[in-house]
Amino acid sequence: MSKKTKISCFLVRRNRNILRFLQFVFLLLFIPQLKAQNSLNYVDFVNPFIGTQRMGHTFPGATVPFGMVQLSPDTDTISYEKAGNYNPEVYAYCAGYQYDDPTIVGFSHTHFSGTGHSDLGDILLMPISGKLKINPGTAKNPESGYRSRFDHDDETAVPNYYQVKLKDYDINAELTATTRAGFHRYTFSDTSSNYLILDLMHGIYNYDDKNVWTFIRVENDTLITGYRQTSGWARTRTVYFALVLNTPLLNYGHEKYDSSVYNGFYRKFDESQNFPEIAGRKIRMWLEPKLPKNKELLIKIGLSSVSAKAALNNLETEIPHWDFDRIVLEGQQSWNQELSKIKAETLTDDDQVVFYTALYHSFLSPITYMDADGRYRGLDQEIHQAEGFTNYTIFSLWDTYRALHPLFNLIQPDRSHDMAESMLAHFDQSVHPMLPVWSHYANENWCMIGYHSVSVLADAIVKGTYRGDLKRALNAAATTAQYPLYDGLNYYMQLGYVPEDKSSNAVSKTLEYAYDDWCIAQIAEQANDSETKSAFERRSFNFRNQFNAASGYMHPRLANGTFRSQFDPFDTHGQGFIEGNAWNYGFYVPHQIPEMIELMGGKTAVDAKLDSLFTLELSDEHIAKNEDITRDGIIGLYVHGNEPGHHIPYLFNYTDSPEKTQERVRMIQKTMYANAPDGLCGNDDCGQMSAWYIFSALGFYPVCPGSDEYVIGSPSVKSALVDLGNGKSLQILAKNQSEKNIYVKKVQLNGKPVADFKLSHQALLQGGLLEFEMTERF
Amino acid sequence: MSKKTKISCFLVRRNRNILRFLQFVFLLLFIPQLKAQNSLNYVDFVNPFIGTQRMGHTFPGATVPFGMVQLSPDTDTISYEKAGNYNPEVYAYCAGYQYDDPTIVGFSHTHFSGTGHSDLGDILLMPISGKLKINPGTAKNPESGYRSRFDHDDETAVPNYYQVKLKDYDINAELTATTRAGFHRYTFSDTSSNYLILDLMHGIYNYDDKNVWTFIRVENDTLITGYRQTSGWARTRTVYFALVLNTPLLNYGHEKYDSSVYNGFYRKFDESQNFPEIAGRKIRMWLEPKLPKNKELLIKIGLSSVSAKAALNNLETEIPHWDFDRIVLEGQQSWNQELSKIKAETLTDDDQVVFYTALYHSFLSPITYMDADGRYRGLDQEIHQAEGFTNYTIFSLWDTYRALHPLFNLIQPDRSHDMAESMLAHFDQSVHPMLPVWSHYANENWCMIGYHSVSVLADAIVKGTYRGDLKRALNAAATTAQYPLYDGLNYYMQLGYVPEDKSSNAVSKTLEYAYDDWCIAQIAEQANDSETKSAFERRSFNFRNQFNAASGYMHPRLANGTFRSQFDPFDTHGQGFIEGNAWNYGFYVPHQIPEMIELMGGKTAVDAKLDSLFTLELSDEHIAKNEDITRDGIIGLYVHGNEPGHHIPYLFNYTDSPEKTQERVRMIQKTMYANAPDGLCGNDDCGQMSAWYIFSALGFYPVCPGSDEYVIGSPSVKSALVDLGNGKSLQILAKNQSEKNIYVKKVQLNGKPVADFKLSHQALLQGGLLEFEMTERF
Repeated sequence: MSKKTKISCFLVRRNRNILRFLQFVFLLLFIPQLKAQNSLNYVDFVNPFIGTQRMGHTFPGATVPFGMVQLSPDTDTISYEKAGNYNPEVYAYCAGYQYDDPTIVGFSHTHFSGTGHSDLGDILLMPISGKLKINPGTAKNPESGYRSRFDHDDETAVPNYYQVKLKDYDINAELTATTRAGFHRYTFSDTSSNYLILDLMHGIYNYDDKNVWTFIRVENDTLITGYRQTSGWARTRTVYFALVLNTPLLNYGHEKYDSSVYNGFYRKFDESQNFPEIAGRKIRMWLEPKLPKNKELLIKIGLSSVSAKAALNNLETEIPHWDFDRIVLEGQQSWNQELSKIKAETLTDDDQVVFYTALYHSFLSPITYMDADGRYRGLDQEIHQAEGFTNYTIFSLWDTYRALHPLFNLIQPDRSHDMAESMLAHFDQSVHPMLPVWSHYANENWCMIGYHSVSVLADAIVKGTYRGDLKRALNAAATTAQYPLYDGLNYYMQLGYVPEDKSSNAVSKTLEYAYDDWCIAQIAEQANDSETKSAFERRSFNFRNQFNAASGYMHPRLANGTFRSQFDPFDTHGQGFIEGNAWNYGFYVPHQIPEMIELMGGKTAVDAKLDSLFTLELSDEHIAKNEDITRDGIIGLYVHGNEPGHHIPYLFNYTDSPEKTQERVRMIQKTMYANAPDGLCGNDDCGQMSAWYIFSALGFYPVCPGSDEYVIGSPSVKSALVDLGNGKSLQILAKNQSEKNIYVKKVQLNGKPVADFKLSHQALLQGGLLEFEMTERF
Repeated sequence: MSKKTKISCFLVRRNRNILRFLQFVFLLLFIPQLKAQNSLNYVDFVNPFIGTQRMGHTFPGATVPFGMVQLSPDTDTISYEKAGNYNPEVYAYCAGYQYDDPTIVGFSHTHFSGTGHSDLGDILLMPISGKLKINPGTAKNPESGYRSRFDHDDETAVPNYYQVKLKDYDINAELTATTRAGFHRYTFSDTSSNYLILDLMHGIYNYDDKNVWTFIRVENDTLITGYRQTSGWARTRTVYFALVLNTPLLNYGHEKYDSSVYNGFYRKFDESQNFPEIAGRKIRMWLEPKLPKNKELLIKIGLSSVSAKAALNNLETEIPHWDFDRIVLEGQQSWNQELSKIKAETLTDDDQVVFYTALYHSFLSPITYMDADGRYRGLDQEIHQAEGFTNYTIFSLWDTYRALHPLFNLIQPDRSHDMAESMLAHFDQSVHPMLPVWSHYANENWCMIGYHSVSVLADAIVKGTYRGDLKRALNAAATTAQYPLYDGLNYYMQLGYVPEDKSSNAVSKTLEYAYDDWCIAQIAEQANDSETKSAFERRSFNFRNQFNAASGYMHPRLANGTFRSQFDPFDTHGQGFIEGNAWNYGFYVPHQIPEMIELMGGKTAVDAKLDSLFTLELSDEHIAKNEDITRDGIIGLYVHGNEPGHHIPYLFNYTDSPEKTQERVRMIQKTMYANAPDGLCGNDDCGQMSAWYIFSALGFYPVCPGSDEYVIGSPSVKSALVDLGNGKSLQILAKNQSEKNIYVKKVQLNGKPVADFKLSHQALLQGGLLEFEMTERF
């Protein structure tokens, strides 16, 4: 990270609002409840810019933990210049913000964090001065539109607060948020000709056809309501909003960029200005507010999936006043509460920022997806009431079942229960009898492979965070795994593997289905259903059918039973794998690692193979074919930027070389995470990359979610106090911790040696002291 | 009407289902409650084909009184061949059916009755045999699509039952309905290759851009749910549906005619067939049901404005069984109950059919617009609950305030109250502070001019059918009349007239605003608000500002106060009038007829002018410029096909020539209404043309709705027993009635002579005997 952008401390700021922020810090430090809780404010250790450069796909804007509104600047979306469904330039804007961009288009209210596909960017606001411009313009010619240049020197991002000076207009823009509402403070320098752009065409991953319908009502001179309906990554999605200003509108108007016709306009009305009923496919509005004397324009926007009235209710419930600073502070208190669930001490200040930013990124999704009154729009497009749980959406499950949900089971047990309930509600609502694959508002994206909801359920059930009906969970899991329409499952059920000539990425599917089936068996065991348990245990061995003893690899197989002759284990495309190749994806048998090792020739052979994995060089051609990662995210054939390898560094524990795990895990922590805008080596993937870091920094990792087991790695923290959410705490202590002392000489849990480098969740849940003794040589 | 199509009696039918229908009739005649009520079944006197040829724009399909579902065959919509927003060929299909067409496209569930603009035609079903065709094809080449030829010989239309044989497939199609659900019975002749087309692109007044979104779920093998969202005449409209079959689907599929993308289709699913989750802009589905042994495919479809679940609830509430014939019968019982509110005896059988079909057409709109549980989608797109009233929509108020709503105040007092509540709910929901102008589902169409809701309210209040809060009604009316954005109202309020150089059709507007203002004064009087009363009384004299003593006409006037020099009183275009000219529209001062007569030179002059109106010939050029009418609808300059003249025949009563009123009124009844498909001389306009007939046939007419007064014309019935809905009945008797005896020699109400040819509503409400003595010479 460059010095210029370093924001490791709340006090480091270079904008003219320093006085206001000192005031926050003052309040923050001296409010009694916070002081009683802890003298440290963990918010200070978060740098939301981490991952905003290149591949991280994080956003720097304002949000509370798991907030539905994630209000952030969009530097571009490419939509204005190019269209197309898979445009690499679109890809860069998954979170709407790229650190190297020179301009900001405006501030929109919904963002994914770290994804490799996108959507959202709803309800963009942009304040401007001078000539009214209703088009966004381009980064090359910002004057051609309403966007503005900006400098990182004039920009601040901390949890629940974002600030930037819009250079072209000399406007200071500040953002904060509650769970369901955004709050904007725009300080103008001029009192003449100030406008607010409300762009309802703007969206991330936009293309010409994405906007389906837009409906706006100017209810009175300080309230605008409406909705934006899109068909993007979510096929059928509507976001309702209610926007309130602190000052009356003098004038307003809109431009419509489609041919839809309104009968009222034929003869009755002058719709060009101050006409309160607006609808069409593509709409941009301009608002001319009466500028208050202090030149501060305040705008609050509530969102909802239910209706505009519900959006207004969300807004009025969460921000019933005009005190912007109070909302900043309350959100930061909330962040501090969440972040302080792990009180970590690291070797360096940068490590501290990397750790807490990873924890911050782990708490950005899934997002709360229900109104203040518990209602939300389900997959059936009906309005549902969440009874007794908080409903969540944005489950990027192929990514997050690995470490993020296990992390929740460790430090967010209540949310973990609610997420399980949310997935079961999804199951109930879906016309497919399936748990979510990639849940996105009231939609299923079907992104990536597997049915890893069952892993998340199994992990929550085995670890006791899911408190609901086990029969219901088992039924949902088993039904999901037997839906023949889904992604080669019919072949899998017939043949015991997915044939590559019938379904692409077949090897990855077989391996993941087999693991998922093992998870279902775990649920069945907890639910005392031995018949289902046996059935899915049988299926869980299907990975055997994919192994080719002749090639020594998990090898693409055809429907006729033969293994495919054309086969390149280094290639990540067309070889039966997705976001991986036979070399690295082939190790994906987390539930039967000893048998996998046997299949592959025994411990010595696999140990050597793992060594090769971290040392072989990928050719440039093979690198270029990798998705979502750059050379930075690769060590030999190990690709940390993609998820299928996340457990691999821990596999040396099973080949009796735990020191190699410790080496690799520590190396990855050190080289692939940094306190810098490009500090993530690949997409953060809704927190999975960050959750990997948190576990690894604490010294253990859930190699097989759905089991009770963690595997020891190499902690990078000096100490950490983990609030287990059950009234108990786990104190982690790494004695002799240093940059050089990367090996674990000894591990003790409450004084007892951990001989096999494995920990059980149940044991950790008792709290106490987990003590590592670090050393320079193993 | 040709003999071929005459359906004056229920027993006249030529299709092969005669046995089934005899069974209905049998049931109908012998069920005890009906028998006790009346030995006559008024359903027998209704010919739904009246108005289906040329300009009537009625539909022959199945509906219950004021039903939300109006399930009817569409013979075309022109959308497949031509697009455009005002295409004369589109215009012919306002109700979806033209009698002269050779083919039927299918059966859709929503239709306007008699309008001059259109929309709707939602959720089209069409059964086919043989080769699967998913496009509708064209009338010229029916083989090119799924449509079928048909003959009127194989077609039946009676209240709540429609039947046609689809020649190309040898399928007998039968339709019936409840308030919120349609019921289809398709009897196939073949057992091989039978399909059902579910066309969600089909719509009336379709154009390329009308379909906004479509969402479909095949919930199981007998249930399909979803919605169709359109932007047509209603800008933002969604119809939800739930479709249930009596037999499982063997296969199904869809075609999508737009570029919207579904991620699930990239690699996971085969969407071409049997994939239950369908969405896009333009969708047509095909269903292949397992044909039952008796070859009868039954389909029930519920509709809702709230959600698909609500649509299913509507369906299950209203048709909880599979007894098609029972639904036909129950709907006909309901029709008989409504129609028997006037038990009329006419001179001829054809007159009887004309009378009861007019009553039938009067009860087709407004439609019930709420679910079985009282919920509906309002103008704000929020879900509302109708508390204590039935919510209605489709208020074509410029047409219907004249006679249809006054008819409701006479024989449908409860519905009249509910309609007033519906209009007030519209006011509460609209972002414009206005009562409805043309209410269309959750939309305002702004069709035509004036704010005639206030007339409907005034008439209901003055006549005592509205039982709600008068202050609320007055506030809504007065606020509506002062909304400066609306249609020249700002000028009207400033200048006392609408200037033609600022707002088109300005003279019509001034005249109607002035009348409407008088109505508001009447509401104010009832609400004891003397200040508002005075203010609107003053405004009600604004018609004076439009009269040019120099030309002798209501004359277009400019903002500078001068009357426009270019002026053709015969021209219906560009002369300050809409659907009329200075000659006929100039008589529109219903609330101050004596003063109008004075302005125009006194009784003698006006009497002569009225004579001329009925005898002058319009040039062909002027005829061609008339909207919505043909030469058949014109007597001299009198245009019965358009509404602004509907009171004119009654004006001779004010020039002391009541015999001329009697002559003209009887002539219009005789020549402009007939028991034939082309039996309406112009658009029925949601029942206004028909309601004019009912009043006129009974012998009196509400020249000035909002007053308590009726004016005597010339009854054509021999007798009529009118159920006043207050426990009392009015017996109307026309002594010496005959085709020649068109003059009223004497009128007596309960034995007292009616000297001035005027009747008060209050007097009629007491019930008793209204006796006309008819004579051949006055």
